Amino acid sequence: MKKQVVKIVKIGGKLIENEAKLLPFLKDFALMQGPKVLVHGGGKMATEMSGKLGYETKMLDGRRITDANAMQVITMVYGGLINKNIVAKLQALNCNAIGLCGADGKSIVSKKRPVREVDYGYVGDIVKVDEAFISGLLEDELVPVFSAISYSEDGQLFNTNADSVASEIARALSAKFEPELYYCFEKKGVLQDPEDDSSVIENIDGAKYQELLEKKIISEGMLPKLQNCFEALEKGVERIYLGDSGLLNRNTLHTKIIK
Amino acid sequence: MKKQVVKIVKIGGKLIENEAKLLPFLKDFALMQGPKVLVHGGGKMATEMSGKLGYETKMLDGRRITDANAMQVITMVYGGLINKNIVAKLQALNCNAIGLCGADGKSIVSKKRPVREVDYGYVGDIVKVDEAFISGLLEDELVPVFSAISYSEDGQLFNTNADSVASEIARALSAKFEPELYYCFEKKGVLQDPEDDSSVIENIDGAKYQELLEKKIISEGMLPKLQNCFEALEKGVERIYLGDSGLLNRNTLHTKIIK
Repeated sequence: MKKQVVKIVKIGGKLIENEAKLLPFLKDFALMQGPKVLVHGGGKMATEMSGKLGYETKMLDGRRITDANAMQVITMVYGGLINKNIVAKLQALNCNAIGLCGADGKSIVSKKRPVREVDYGYVGDIVKVDEAFISGLLEDELVPVFSAISYSEDGQLFNTNADSVASEIARALSAKFEPELYYCFEKKGVLQDPEDDSSVIENIDGAKYQELLEKKIISEGMLPKLQNCFEALEKGVERIYLGDSGLLNRNTLHTKIIK
Repeated sequence: MKKQVVKIVKIGGKLIENEAKLLPFLKDFALMQGPKVLVHGGGKMATEMSGKLGYETKMLDGRRITDANAMQVITMVYGGLINKNIVAKLQALNCNAIGLCGADGKSIVSKKRPVREVDYGYVGDIVKVDEAFISGLLEDELVPVFSAISYSEDGQLFNTNADSVASEIARALSAKFEPELYYCFEKKGVLQDPEDDSSVIENIDGAKYQELLEKKIISEGMLPKLQNCFEALEKGVERIYLGDSGLLNRNTLHTKIIK
């Protein structure tokens, strides 16, 4: 029997920060048919809030060193402020959202990232996604909205990469569904020329990815995202799309990742 | 057919602030048998966070005037920081919690408190609790943990009295369950003499309540709580208890509110 499609959408930071960008995205998301999941982080808002609180933000190669203060801010900003506002706005758009972090329903279990050269602090790598719990919500026609927070079984919350949260949820749901993964951000896709918004590379397969890597065309922020995509394709995610929210319903110009 | 008992527990602010008090409470809560719901606010932590952010906290007769900044802090502190930490700690105690606010699953709809002498800002009075959604979670053996935030159908989050959230959930659940309401705080119950922790009044009925009111024995903070209790008893809540967390399992000295 053909499995039902489930759409997992990760919304990028720059769409969250600004209500004028967030609302059109949420409208597009609310209009998507069928079972769906939304995943968000909110790094820039967390950095701003840390600043207001007088906490120093430490980044290394684009990754946040998450000390106790940073974890507190992330729990407030991702788990509370962003998550609950997105849920309330989706409700007003007739989308029956439920805002969660990984500790809710034991949905996303992680363990602290091992300390090698760097101690990232309260950063967790995902070890398990509770497929049955998330599927149960989808069967009840709820729309899970996950903040990029996981937890360890001893009760510690962990900051977790939002792209990984999305791809791990997609992989877990492949047991019952046919998952499609959407990475939405402010650009129309992966660009051949970062200065030219229309230079979208429409299809990227493994060979094209290697070519782009060698030619150093892929920007630093896009690298781990694409790596994530190819891993997800290997592990049961059917289709992966990158672009702005137009790709959710309107099939505007975007990038498709293929095996 | 006799309905199943559901226990709705509201945890008071002073038990939340301090991890040394919170953990023993959560252990008692986790040990409670059968379907249960936890409700929390976190006013003092919100006031502290507002102070750190340089926001002024305006209170009137013990009630918070909730402007946009205060609502932002409440969404962060109640909806994120306190809620997600409680959920993670309950998971570590083998209690499968799910942290929610009223916008999640459309569970608690409110409308802005009407402006009479005072405009309380983003303060909502509850108009509807989605009994089917909460019952569904309980049937799936999940333990809902509600922060005292509701929402209006146009997508606005509202600060909402946590005692009222607890009693309204209890009333709504009376359709399918036999609800018991527990107000847990740092005292053993309603005290005859506020200076004497052992002077617990063990039973309060309507007549006793009037007597205590006339003798001005009930403290200011306890007044709306007791008023809430008698309203809840009128509207289908079976039993109401006030005291410290010992009353959840160990049947320690406490106050019982009776018709």
